[in-house]
Amino acid sequence: MPVKEACGLLGIYSSRMDRSIAKTVYYGLFALQHRGQESAGIAVSDLRSIKYHKGLGLVSEVFDEKNLEDLTGKIAVGHVRYSTTGSNSLNNAQPLVVRYHSGELAVVHNGNLINAFEIRQELEKKGFVFHTTTDSEVIAALIAKSGTDLVESAIQLTEKIKGAYSLLIMTKDKLLAVRDPHGFRPLCIGSYNDAYVVASESAALDTIGASFMRDVCPGEIVVFDKSGMSTCNVSVERKSLCIFEFVYFARPDSVIDGVSVYMARWKAGKILSKEHPVDADLVVAVPDSGNVAAIGFSDGTGIPVGMGLIKNRYIGRTFIQPSQRIRNLGVKLKLSVLKELVNGKKIVLVDDSIVRGTTMSQIVNMLKDCGARSVHVRVSSPPVKYSCYFGIDTSSRKELIASSYDIESIRKFVGADSVGYLSIEGLVEAVGMKDRDLCLACFTGNYPLKAPRKGKKYLFEKR
Amino acid sequence: MPVKEACGLLGIYSSRMDRSIAKTVYYGLFALQHRGQESAGIAVSDLRSIKYHKGLGLVSEVFDEKNLEDLTGKIAVGHVRYSTTGSNSLNNAQPLVVRYHSGELAVVHNGNLINAFEIRQELEKKGFVFHTTTDSEVIAALIAKSGTDLVESAIQLTEKIKGAYSLLIMTKDKLLAVRDPHGFRPLCIGSYNDAYVVASESAALDTIGASFMRDVCPGEIVVFDKSGMSTCNVSVERKSLCIFEFVYFARPDSVIDGVSVYMARWKAGKILSKEHPVDADLVVAVPDSGNVAAIGFSDGTGIPVGMGLIKNRYIGRTFIQPSQRIRNLGVKLKLSVLKELVNGKKIVLVDDSIVRGTTMSQIVNMLKDCGARSVHVRVSSPPVKYSCYFGIDTSSRKELIASSYDIESIRKFVGADSVGYLSIEGLVEAVGMKDRDLCLACFTGNYPLKAPRKGKKYLFEKR
Amino acid sequence: MPVKEACGLLGIYSSRMDRSIAKTVYYGLFALQHRGQESAGIAVSDLRSIKYHKGLGLVSEVFDEKNLEDLTGKIAVGHVRYSTTGSNSLNNAQPLVVRYHSGELAVVHNGNLINAFEIRQELEKKGFVFHTTTDSEVIAALIAKSGTDLVESAIQLTEKIKGAYSLLIMTKDKLLAVRDPHGFRPLCIGSYNDAYVVASESAALDTIGASFMRDVCPGEIVVFDKSGMSTCNVSVERKSLCIFEFVYFARPDSVIDGVSVYMARWKAGKILSKEHPVDADLVVAVPDSGNVAAIGFSDGTGIPVGMGLIKNRYIGRTFIQPSQRIRNLGVKLKLSVLKELVNGKKIVLVDDSIVRGTTMSQIVNMLKDCGARSVHVRVSSPPVKYSCYFGIDTSSRKELIASSYDIESIRKFVGADSVGYLSIEGLVEAVGMKDRDLCLACFTGNYPLKAPRKGKKYLFEKR
Amino acid sequence: MPVKEACGLLGIYSSRMDRSIAKTVYYGLFALQHRGQESAGIAVSDLRSIKYHKGLGLVSEVFDEKNLEDLTGKIAVGHVRYSTTGSNSLNNAQPLVVRYHSGELAVVHNGNLINAFEIRQELEKKGFVFHTTTDSEVIAALIAKSGTDLVESAIQLTEKIKGAYSLLIMTKDKLLAVRDPHGFRPLCIGSYNDAYVVASESAALDTIGASFMRDVCPGEIVVFDKSGMSTCNVSVERKSLCIFEFVYFARPDSVIDGVSVYMARWKAGKILSKEHPVDADLVVAVPDSGNVAAIGFSDGTGIPVGMGLIKNRYIGRTFIQPSQRIRNLGVKLKLSVLKELVNGKKIVLVDDSIVRGTTMSQIVNMLKDCGARSVHVRVSSPPVKYSCYFGIDTSSRKELIASSYDIESIRKFVGADSVGYLSIEGLVEAVGMKDRDLCLACFTGNYPLKAPRKGKKYLFEKR
Repeated sequence: MPVKEACGLLGIYSSRMDRSIAKTVYYGLFALQHRGQESAGIAVSDLRSIKYHKGLGLVSEVFDEKNLEDLTGKIAVGHVRYSTTGSNSLNNAQPLVVRYHSGELAVVHNGNLINAFEIRQELEKKGFVFHTTTDSEVIAALIAKSGTDLVESAIQLTEKIKGAYSLLIMTKDKLLAVRDPHGFRPLCIGSYNDAYVVASESAALDTIGASFMRDVCPGEIVVFDKSGMSTCNVSVERKSLCIFEFVYFARPDSVIDGVSVYMARWKAGKILSKEHPVDADLVVAVPDSGNVAAIGFSDGTGIPVGMGLIKNRYIGRTFIQPSQRIRNLGVKLKLSVLKELVNGKKIVLVDDSIVRGTTMSQIVNMLKDCGARSVHVRVSSPPVKYSCYFGIDTSSRKELIASSYDIESIRKFVGADSVGYLSIEGLVEAVGMKDRDLCLACFTGNYPLKAPRKGKKYLFEKR
Repeated sequence: MPVKEACGLLGIYSSRMDRSIAKTVYYGLFALQHRGQESAGIAVSDLRSIKYHKGLGLVSEVFDEKNLEDLTGKIAVGHVRYSTTGSNSLNNAQPLVVRYHSGELAVVHNGNLINAFEIRQELEKKGFVFHTTTDSEVIAALIAKSGTDLVESAIQLTEKIKGAYSLLIMTKDKLLAVRDPHGFRPLCIGSYNDAYVVASESAALDTIGASFMRDVCPGEIVVFDKSGMSTCNVSVERKSLCIFEFVYFARPDSVIDGVSVYMARWKAGKILSKEHPVDADLVVAVPDSGNVAAIGFSDGTGIPVGMGLIKNRYIGRTFIQPSQRIRNLGVKLKLSVLKELVNGKKIVLVDDSIVRGTTMSQIVNMLKDCGARSVHVRVSSPPVKYSCYFGIDTSSRKELIASSYDIESIRKFVGADSVGYLSIEGLVEAVGMKDRDLCLACFTGNYPLKAPRKGKKYLFEKR
Repeated sequence: MPVKEACGLLGIYSSRMDRSIAKTVYYGLFALQHRGQESAGIAVSDLRSIKYHKGLGLVSEVFDEKNLEDLTGKIAVGHVRYSTTGSNSLNNAQPLVVRYHSGELAVVHNGNLINAFEIRQELEKKGFVFHTTTDSEVIAALIAKSGTDLVESAIQLTEKIKGAYSLLIMTKDKLLAVRDPHGFRPLCIGSYNDAYVVASESAALDTIGASFMRDVCPGEIVVFDKSGMSTCNVSVERKSLCIFEFVYFARPDSVIDGVSVYMARWKAGKILSKEHPVDADLVVAVPDSGNVAAIGFSDGTGIPVGMGLIKNRYIGRTFIQPSQRIRNLGVKLKLSVLKELVNGKKIVLVDDSIVRGTTMSQIVNMLKDCGARSVHVRVSSPPVKYSCYFGIDTSSRKELIASSYDIESIRKFVGADSVGYLSIEGLVEAVGMKDRDLCLACFTGNYPLKAPRKGKKYLFEKR
Repeated sequence: MPVKEACGLLGIYSSRMDRSIAKTVYYGLFALQHRGQESAGIAVSDLRSIKYHKGLGLVSEVFDEKNLEDLTGKIAVGHVRYSTTGSNSLNNAQPLVVRYHSGELAVVHNGNLINAFEIRQELEKKGFVFHTTTDSEVIAALIAKSGTDLVESAIQLTEKIKGAYSLLIMTKDKLLAVRDPHGFRPLCIGSYNDAYVVASESAALDTIGASFMRDVCPGEIVVFDKSGMSTCNVSVERKSLCIFEFVYFARPDSVIDGVSVYMARWKAGKILSKEHPVDADLVVAVPDSGNVAAIGFSDGTGIPVGMGLIKNRYIGRTFIQPSQRIRNLGVKLKLSVLKELVNGKKIVLVDDSIVRGTTMSQIVNMLKDCGARSVHVRVSSPPVKYSCYFGIDTSSRKELIASSYDIESIRKFVGADSVGYLSIEGLVEAVGMKDRDLCLACFTGNYPLKAPRKGKKYLFEKR
């Protein structure tokens, strides 16, 4: 519930012309829609030129039969984006398609570069102009500035840019998949018939009927062209897969670097139930973020699970300014309590994380208003104390309740009878990777890369 | 999963002018969006005249800040509709607003009249013309044909029309709520500040911060005007509340005629587990229709529940013609299997009902492909054997698998290791009402009202 | 320039199925666009049912390839409308398509009934409801109230309704063209290949490549069906063709009841030059309304014509609220003076009519600002003193400058050096019909039909 | 009628913040709409940053109240464009707004660079990427590549680029107006209250109530900033004002470099009547391109002018694919003959130019079909024999009828009784400038600048 992911991407390299390649990308983007709901786009190459269509809104809003039919070809990349709204934000939608010395170039990108601003300043000093405020344009400029060998250019690119990036680069006859040397963001490869697919999450492969092949390795550049698939490893740094992909971002039915997201969440809930046991009648999830961990908690304790909170699915995308009375309802607009279930019960309330605490406070209050005898908040990840510079829009540090308050103060703030967070060790155990292969910076403050002085998403727009 | 509901409605009578009355209706309609997703509309009276806006699509697509701000007043009615698509279907969107001898009239309607065609023919013989193919226009015509006393006209209306209807009638200074003498469809009353609210489901009251007062009784006409709320009972017939509101249609957080929908579904799952026990490792729900019953089944047996099927939430509203390869994926586009969870397990698969059986067959197949050792289908309602004439778009009778096949044939068709349906008695027990107060016709064929020879939704359009 | 016409219509009866019948109507409506720019619509019958599409805006804005392709059939009617804007005015767009005892009915209408309100009240007393505020719905209701013989119903219709109407009525297998017994509004018949065409103006026939056959006679009902074209004359009253069709409304390239609109305007200008000669250097038209008469004036006097006023063609359809400074520019936004041409000259300024006088006053002022030595206003029709009840939206009587002021006062008001109006005799001579065959009521106040007490366009909407 | 102009532009520098500056630009762009109807855009600086809105279509289609209100500031530039349609052509709409080392930059441009492709290749070799296929992006890149002094950068720019350009460059606090050293395209300065206005044509100044001050000189850079207006002349080359601005492009009410467009056209028609006299009854213009010259011809001969051809104003912007029968009508869809006027007459048919001859041939044919005894074609400019590389989309040379055929062959092709073109000397006399100050290349083939090998508009898109 608390944080917003920035971007999902999907590419296809087909060994033959495919009139419906854009439609396949389209269906794949649906499976990644949870990673970005502000804009969507698809670019397709038919070996001669690159065409594209992009727009603001959900995948289903941006595309229609006609603009998909206009996009036929052999290679395709698609993107869904979380971004700021604003009059010109269409400019920042992806794929970014540009012309350069060797023809056309399309870039889609998930992540966040921490030295994009410096690179950009450097390029501007040389007279480069920029049309957007995205990292992707910096990436395209660096590719264009290198020589004419695309793979060589991509290698130089990875030596220049720093930060988190999973990245697809398409020219008229090639598709490159690049994952940063730390492997912050997921990226995996699948296939169907005579086509390769690269996607942010394995669930997107399932949706379009592709078989999972393998993950792209941290620091790997995978090249798809008429010779098939080849690979080069540009550098090896400490792997630092973002733990929040397991905690919140990724779909439960995805498998990232060999780990099932569902199982990780379920185990997190189960371990949490051991670390912070409680005498209660009912386990209630904050839907949908707490759903899987709640089942794990229930399975770990034998306390039955019940849908004590019901989500109003459709209300999410209204942009209407509510009246004061409606605004005062707060989270009630989005969540209803199942009174008959909750009344008179001791409740374990499970969510994946707490960011600012205001929503959790309203939920606890709603449950008590509906007769809950007690509400014990259990969180299936450790306290989030530090901002993320690698592609996630957590609030700024001072808004993070756990950066300023201890557990008891948080308990008071949210009005719960008890609060228990999963330990870092518990979470790492649930995921089942070595802790040194994970980025845990939002819990520990130990950033795998030196954080920028003021690494702000909107830096480019602010000057 | 199987059937489509036709319409949700909500009305407000405020004792003072309310600049944001349409916005309140708007938020209330979100809570009813599951009852109809094809068109939405709101009409508002400011005591002098009635203004309205309606359109095709979801509530969030039909309304924007501007058209809501144009709708200020004291009385309002809103509607969401399931309907056929077609070039002129906007015509059939509600509210229906017409002018008649006593001024303007707005009608919103949930249900299905079984003698609308006859009444319409009768009126056409007298020279009446019809602009739409809706029951609502027949209702408006009958109101207009009566005298000038609105309540008296409404009484005459209920004597003339037969079938299922929950109905709001708004004039410039009055709001009437009418529920048919059998009470087929739900309708309830709430209040906030100095306003009354009438809605199809109590969950809509919660969403806009109104307190539940009571259900409208079968055969009752409730009048809201400057004197407040008054009531008249026009006739008493056998109550016949539609059982499918509990099985599938209504939101789990609604309470209908005193019964919690969630609790009814949970009990149905629990009773089902007693009627058709099975040795298994995991209870899996078909999301979202089987979610609550699956928990009940788990609680009744101790077999843990797991999210073995994941719904692709966003794919629901695409209108793009898929390519052949994508079309062959079938239900895979909409549901993913959680392989890690399912593999090697004996699965109990729970859904609320089976209509044609094709989807269930695909799901069973998917689970087995992912390594399920066995799949035992459990259905939390009895076999649906008969068509509905009272407002629900079940398929025609010959498409209903249970109307032609016995349980063993259904088991073979869906490819399951066993199939168990809840008994009628079990379902009635779960709901907790007397069976004579419920319409069970889709299971029994005993219609509370004589079914029309060929009671078709599109009758008007077909001649 | 001064008055607004209400509606143009066009119908086609083809003896074979025509996939592009709606496209032909579409192109024909372009030629009638000057008669109404607020909404457009086309309905088509394929002998089985009637489909239609209509919308607010210009013909080119309402239709696209897709909605035209959906409209294939044998019979078609189209309409362009001048109407009030308003949230629900789409409701009032034509064709009006309704269902009645004998099937479907489409009506398009040009004109104004003076007893529509009374008929409507009468019908409402019988319980009829009305969805729109148009005369067309009253016409449809009367047709539906009659028996099942369509021609008989049309005859009864003409006996009931009073006022100006040129009218097309389409059922699934018939097309009727009706012109009121006074023949207020034009209506003519043409043909191409094996199709008949009926249109408001002959120019529309030319545009779609149809040959002119003849005008529909006043009081005639022309029937097109599988037997071909037949006719019945329902009544003979004094013909009263609206003189303003020649003065302003109709296209110059139309021929109405045997008279070329262009030639009538040219002669009006020439006769005007004899009635009100003036010593001047240049004849300048107010574009486009004065264009033809200006040439006539020039030809009558030998004074050369010059485009001293240039129209800003594109500015007409902006709905942007101008800033105060721009608003103060007034008619300057729409007209520019050709300074080089006007400077130092004695100008004859020709327009077809003066309604309120404010625009003429601004134009005279602009010309003088640009150095015109004198400006002599010449108007190619007599002073408009009386309101029209027969389909033209002249301002209400008190806004008509000539109803309150004499010529000298008008001269002072507009700031001209002289003002000369064409005499009634002059105008009648220019048209070349007998004056008793023309409606001259806006000049004389002698209405061919008794004017309603308060015959207001918006009467229906005001109660 | 024959050629299509590429672009109109307008800029405002106001000495104070102006909430309605974008609205003023909006109204000014209406007056320039004839110069480009494919896209429109406005950018505004409020001294802190630049905001913009642009879109495909007419000015009235691109802008609404809301997007104009979002654009408040002190400096503004606007643009209308003739361009190719295509899925991504919005990309090529102007203003082009980019970020560079010194902040933001907006560019609007009218004309055509003949060395843009070479410059672009040069820049691409240095790693520059391009998002559009416009000259404007090349201009922005050159500005960005120069140092930080904007005026100095503009001077360097004019030394680098070759071809025709009238150009506005806006930064957050400055507006620069640049006209190429040959002065191919017009550009003029006006003022209102405390604001300066720069526009492609003086008619746009009139429309928004600004007073004409002077033309921008060829090779001049005019700077508007907080110090007011200043100027620097960068170079002096032979002036080469495009003669076609007088022949066809510009509005008749504009004055370019001291010459009234109307008077030039009128004189052209008059001189034409002396060069190619004819015994005839009526002078008919091809509307609207021949309107003014036809009056001149009439005034030169005493033969009366008559509107023998009527333009169907609204049909211009349909994008509907016509049926075969409609397509066969050809120019009849767009032009109607006034039969009554033409029948039996000897006609002088006047147009400004003939490009391919097909339209003229159809018109002559239509006139003869309507009874014209003879048709004498008179063209108010010399034969167009050579392509233009300086911003006008004439057809390629081989499509120009006069490049392959002599007058007698053209006469036969169009089916006229005689054809007479104005001589080059006659046209130059009509304009009243020295011939060495005009670009007459389309008549003579003597290009002021060496024509590029294959100087094609779409060069960038074709590789």
